[in-house]
Amino acid sequence: MVGQRFVSLLQDHPRFDLVAAYASDRSEGRTVSATWRLHDAPLYDGVGELVLREGSLGNLRADRLDLVFSALPAAVAKDLEAAIAAAGIPVFSNASSHRMESRVPLLIPEVNPEHLSLLDGSGRGFLVTNPNCTTTGLALVLHALGRAVRFRRVFVATYQALSGAGFDGPSGIDVSGNVLPHIASEEEKVFAEPRKILGQLGDGGVVPADISVYAHCARVPVRDGHLEAVTVECDDAPDLTAVERALATFTAIPQSKSLPTAPTAPILVRTEPDRPQPLLDVNAGTPARARGMAVTVGRLRSDDHVLRLYLLVHNTIRGGAGGSLLNAELADALGYLG
Amino acid sequence: MVGQRFVSLLQDHPRFDLVAAYASDRSEGRTVSATWRLHDAPLYDGVGELVLREGSLGNLRADRLDLVFSALPAAVAKDLEAAIAAAGIPVFSNASSHRMESRVPLLIPEVNPEHLSLLDGSGRGFLVTNPNCTTTGLALVLHALGRAVRFRRVFVATYQALSGAGFDGPSGIDVSGNVLPHIASEEEKVFAEPRKILGQLGDGGVVPADISVYAHCARVPVRDGHLEAVTVECDDAPDLTAVERALATFTAIPQSKSLPTAPTAPILVRTEPDRPQPLLDVNAGTPARARGMAVTVGRLRSDDHVLRLYLLVHNTIRGGAGGSLLNAELADALGYLG
Amino acid sequence: MVGQRFVSLLQDHPRFDLVAAYASDRSEGRTVSATWRLHDAPLYDGVGELVLREGSLGNLRADRLDLVFSALPAAVAKDLEAAIAAAGIPVFSNASSHRMESRVPLLIPEVNPEHLSLLDGSGRGFLVTNPNCTTTGLALVLHALGRAVRFRRVFVATYQALSGAGFDGPSGIDVSGNVLPHIASEEEKVFAEPRKILGQLGDGGVVPADISVYAHCARVPVRDGHLEAVTVECDDAPDLTAVERALATFTAIPQSKSLPTAPTAPILVRTEPDRPQPLLDVNAGTPARARGMAVTVGRLRSDDHVLRLYLLVHNTIRGGAGGSLLNAELADALGYLG
Amino acid sequence: MVGQRFVSLLQDHPRFDLVAAYASDRSEGRTVSATWRLHDAPLYDGVGELVLREGSLGNLRADRLDLVFSALPAAVAKDLEAAIAAAGIPVFSNASSHRMESRVPLLIPEVNPEHLSLLDGSGRGFLVTNPNCTTTGLALVLHALGRAVRFRRVFVATYQALSGAGFDGPSGIDVSGNVLPHIASEEEKVFAEPRKILGQLGDGGVVPADISVYAHCARVPVRDGHLEAVTVECDDAPDLTAVERALATFTAIPQSKSLPTAPTAPILVRTEPDRPQPLLDVNAGTPARARGMAVTVGRLRSDDHVLRLYLLVHNTIRGGAGGSLLNAELADALGYLG
Repeated sequence: MVGQRFVSLLQDHPRFDLVAAYASDRSEGRTVSATWRLHDAPLYDGVGELVLREGSLGNLRADRLDLVFSALPAAVAKDLEAAIAAAGIPVFSNASSHRMESRVPLLIPEVNPEHLSLLDGSGRGFLVTNPNCTTTGLALVLHALGRAVRFRRVFVATYQALSGAGFDGPSGIDVSGNVLPHIASEEEKVFAEPRKILGQLGDGGVVPADISVYAHCARVPVRDGHLEAVTVECDDAPDLTAVERALATFTAIPQSKSLPTAPTAPILVRTEPDRPQPLLDVNAGTPARARGMAVTVGRLRSDDHVLRLYLLVHNTIRGGAGGSLLNAELADALGYLG
Repeated sequence: MVGQRFVSLLQDHPRFDLVAAYASDRSEGRTVSATWRLHDAPLYDGVGELVLREGSLGNLRADRLDLVFSALPAAVAKDLEAAIAAAGIPVFSNASSHRMESRVPLLIPEVNPEHLSLLDGSGRGFLVTNPNCTTTGLALVLHALGRAVRFRRVFVATYQALSGAGFDGPSGIDVSGNVLPHIASEEEKVFAEPRKILGQLGDGGVVPADISVYAHCARVPVRDGHLEAVTVECDDAPDLTAVERALATFTAIPQSKSLPTAPTAPILVRTEPDRPQPLLDVNAGTPARARGMAVTVGRLRSDDHVLRLYLLVHNTIRGGAGGSLLNAELADALGYLG
Repeated sequence: MVGQRFVSLLQDHPRFDLVAAYASDRSEGRTVSATWRLHDAPLYDGVGELVLREGSLGNLRADRLDLVFSALPAAVAKDLEAAIAAAGIPVFSNASSHRMESRVPLLIPEVNPEHLSLLDGSGRGFLVTNPNCTTTGLALVLHALGRAVRFRRVFVATYQALSGAGFDGPSGIDVSGNVLPHIASEEEKVFAEPRKILGQLGDGGVVPADISVYAHCARVPVRDGHLEAVTVECDDAPDLTAVERALATFTAIPQSKSLPTAPTAPILVRTEPDRPQPLLDVNAGTPARARGMAVTVGRLRSDDHVLRLYLLVHNTIRGGAGGSLLNAELADALGYLG
Repeated sequence: MVGQRFVSLLQDHPRFDLVAAYASDRSEGRTVSATWRLHDAPLYDGVGELVLREGSLGNLRADRLDLVFSALPAAVAKDLEAAIAAAGIPVFSNASSHRMESRVPLLIPEVNPEHLSLLDGSGRGFLVTNPNCTTTGLALVLHALGRAVRFRRVFVATYQALSGAGFDGPSGIDVSGNVLPHIASEEEKVFAEPRKILGQLGDGGVVPADISVYAHCARVPVRDGHLEAVTVECDDAPDLTAVERALATFTAIPQSKSLPTAPTAPILVRTEPDRPQPLLDVNAGTPARARGMAVTVGRLRSDDHVLRLYLLVHNTIRGGAGGSLLNAELADALGYLG
């Protein structure tokens, strides 16, 4: 799923040319078009005819790639991504395998662009990761929120889309008209990853932020878009107007540098009583190239020190391929791609 | 929806005879069978042929009823339920109109049976209410939890079923493959009602419990069953074994008195990693008459002082008609029905 | 799925005792309860604790069974069912492997009970099959229809439930909000099987009926119940009143012999404009033991020689385990079980 | 729904400028943006801020419009569309009210462009209608099919999307996990409309084609896209290769004149075993402006004289607003708009 989103986003990218696509044994030798299952993203002429190749290190080297985007399963990513990087090819990965390593940036360009400096001195072959889909939306909003309130504890419950489990996710008979209250390792990632992303650079890498995110992660019968019910325990009673302004006006380097896939506003605040909704808001983001890159926040409300809101993130765009692509655009803009 | 559940549960009840059913103008004059839309509850011979009558005070009086169950919309319930009670007919109501009134018990038989004494001295015509569907499951679990841990703050996010909105709820085009992150007045009820239910009887009525429930209430495309992701901030680090035992072994008056609709175990604790699920667990409860009356808890876990669990309650049975019926059975067993 | 329906229907059967349940490697050694995924069928005490065993011929013989119900996958059924029968144990099978064999009855008790005589002289070990789920509902209705009209060509389009594909059917991401217009081998079965079922006994077995069923088979996001849009090209303009009466009053041997799982009326005719609906009608059938055994017909209409109707059959009860069980009850009543 | 599709398709149209949008009382005075519920069509700057006005004849005249697109409900369309046309404003309508009138073209530009001559001599104010959504896809395919086979009888069963019932269609509780086997007046339209569309111009209007379409129309829980299972009784055994070629190579005036909203190929033929699928194929059509304008056909198969196929049409684009828009583009190209 994320792999196909990479293809979709790269097929007309102004900076990066899609020259090859690699797949598992199951799809190797088939065209991109024959395997295509993204209902809302058409393929352009030429790209559909691209034949999927075996994702071996040998093939990748032979293709003389300038960089690689990875949507590998974690089990495969561990060694293969390390080998690709060791071969001098930068890897921008959506896989979880290397996210928590001390010299690997876990990056959201609007949140912790300075973490790219973890790569300084590492040579041309390096690894940059983007967070788990759920974490991405949450960390982006928490970072912007930090401009208006101080907090150390966050409670979140998720309504996660089927696409997050890929094409071989739960069967229709199990998820139709149902909720599955468990997603393997998800709650652990949502606890650990924000600590690194929101952490400060120190001598030995990133010093984790002192923040605890207690999550409940569940799968709902929705196609795309992770909705998150977020409760923030603030140090002081929050000023809702300030909070809303902090979120709605938030911009960062991707916006100031006009990175191709950066949304004009990374966070959209809706004031209707019943938004965000996955169906209506999942593709938020302008310009057209940034559809699915904006996180939508709604139902902001506070009660004493407790701040509540819903947020929605496109799990395979901002929380997947689009996030990884924006990381590469940032690395490119900051000179890391040579 | 709740009205049809009342009919379903009453059609072969050992203590109460269903003698008449009343409806709005839209359905008046039609048979129960012709209006039936409960997919999982068959009608028995005779009951289906019952003709729905206008729910006027005159009709109710003329029918010389011993008691009335009400699933009236709140707007109508306000005056009509009061009038019925004033006419000397006990009313067991699922409507929200009178729940917070000081002389009206807001009752869950396993939780606060002693609140029935609010009726002492009120004569034969009285009102007894059951809580909102979401509150019912939550308050039952919080009460049992109180035997193992102490707490004052609870964070909850809900995954509420379509049946909670009745037959005229959100249109298919709006909810299919979507989540609606707002249910009118629901979060307010989930804050206010547990305070009364878990409160102590005092001179002027119930002294509210010092507990704050911060809720996010959302509608998901599920037919029956409200799933709730519950986070409890405990005073001390909880002992999970003790917590599980406190929930799994919990029983109260309805069990000791073997009320007809009481489940053998009001709370079932599942230890699988992915339960409770609405589809598989909504009808929990034995014996057969108590299907849908047990609340299922799962994914119990703790992290320092923070306790997390999921619970599932059948919103139109335990959280609706079944809850109301159990209230009447309790009142009957305790002599309030004369 | 069908295997679990067998367990559900057999757990309190008046004639057959469930003494053992067998499963594939994946589930062997687990309890019935631990693998249970039938959302609408509770397990009774004792049955849930039954441990699933390996379905080997050795085990089956050692257990000294009087008969076996099979929901084996076709690939396994071919040899194993033959071996079980050869070992002298009667097999009532839902698998497709042996359905079209000349000495094997393809049986619907209300339609072709006389086909059981194919077993005459075969000794104690024999095979009886029930048709494909889609065929079952269709053949039952066509047979009853034959009492009022004559026809040779039938056009049918199906709306088939997810449970028909079992627990490992299409993934949620593929079927949610979608229709899959293909079910492997289904249209071929729906053409071939009615010819045998509606055929006459001849010297060498069954002489196929001269009937052509042209089907379109599609999967829809429904849990249980195959809906079929049926068009019958009649020899003469049909008399709708006679047709309705022929269907609604149809009974046969299972009814006259009061077989335990036989519905009082095998075909229910609904006259509302929008029935049958899978959700509301899938469990049609009285008494309680026959829930899901009645086929519901609706929207009967004719236009010149063309008769149209919708029918609904519970695909894993009447069209699966229940059909097989009724076959065994018929064989028992007619003395084939010794 | 169709109204919003009109706005979406017109917001950047090369020939027509969207200058005003009209609505019912319920939405009057609100912005287009505030009422927007099309999940897959973003609004461009400016259009979202357009304020919806009352759709009165006075307003329409005051706005000095060159033409009007109508998605009015049939009850309102009857008189209002006639009045608008009488006021000299051409109306391109998706409403059913005037479709069968003898001087009103019922138009699919690729099928019966010559029917526009019904307008000859009618002056500037005239009415042009497009067919019912189900009919549109069917008539387009039948017309192209006529180049390879001859037939007079067609059997069709539909799997129609929720959007066909508009925003106030069936409630979620009724359609989730269900099929509704009835759509008011739909089968009648699917019988009557193809006869006119495929008919020949005669002296008094259109002489209906001698074709009978026997339909079963059902609603399934799909968002967009009507799937149709089509069986054609051919005069001779069809040559499948010729049929496929006739469909796949079919083009007509909209293509030769490169009308803006015309798809390059009006009919796409898929050869995979499980296509077309609503989710994956509903937006078929190139170039970008013609997304949703191509009808997808799949599973072509024949058996003696019986030809079977599935087709899929986007019900609110090709079968709604897009069809109407293409009608206006044709009228414009042929000089009917002065």
